[in-house]
Amino acid sequence: MDETYEIRVIGRVQSPLLDRHTAPLQAHEGAPPAWLVLFDWASAGLDGLAVGDDVLVLTWLHQADRTTLRVHPRGDLRNPERGVFGTRSPDRPNPIGIHRARILEIAPPSLQVSALEAIDGTPIVDIKVALDATDR
Amino acid sequence: MDETYEIRVIGRVQSPLLDRHTAPLQAHEGAPPAWLVLFDWASAGLDGLAVGDDVLVLTWLHQADRTTLRVHPRGDLRNPERGVFGTRSPDRPNPIGIHRARILEIAPPSLQVSALEAIDGTPIVDIKVALDATDR
Repeated sequence: MDETYEIRVIGRVQSPLLDRHTAPLQAHEGAPPAWLVLFDWASAGLDGLAVGDDVLVLTWLHQADRTTLRVHPRGDLRNPERGVFGTRSPDRPNPIGIHRARILEIAPPSLQVSALEAIDGTPIVDIKVALDATDR
Repeated sequence: MDETYEIRVIGRVQSPLLDRHTAPLQAHEGAPPAWLVLFDWASAGLDGLAVGDDVLVLTWLHQADRTTLRVHPRGDLRNPERGVFGTRSPDRPNPIGIHRARILEIAPPSLQVSALEAIDGTPIVDIKVALDATDR
């Protein structure tokens, strides 16, 4: 039998990006700033974060196909098919997105961050302060 | 009502580290190599990965306290308490660990990787190829 755990969503992305098929695949590919709107119960977890801090935002890519184990990287049929764990495809058994972004504004329970490629309404599952300049 | 999603574990860490209280907090703090033992159904997701590739391993830190929203960073009472999202504490609402490691050996459905700070038996939820030298 499968072993499972329950993710409890902590908030939601508010972004001008509305469609996963036209959204950038990576933050540096033209993603806009976005708001991370946390639920009130999670707000205490933000204490100590400051404008200018870099964070890793973990999202649940809720439109992903969780049955996918092999893909053409970047959705391009010219790229040979390979296992999803050798790619960054959102389609995978546990579609967790990792996004590095900088905090632009804090208005608890919300944060505005730079360059997020997740679409509007994407569930947020975690925020972690980045450890150093290379961390993501 | 809470919005939730179900994580389906893809495998388990096999490591000489047995106790979270004595395990290193970060991989560069003396973590040993470990095996990522995937379940058979997930094995096809490894196709295309090779020895020497760097990957991000996502784990479910199953011994974490999920009710925690404020902590003393690194468990040291001398560090002022702050919100968990401004730390890398394993105790947080969704205890997902992110570990960057290099593939040392591939024997499907298992992979051996360098320097993993997760303890023996930790559930694995995802593996993503690292995008570049700074990605983690």
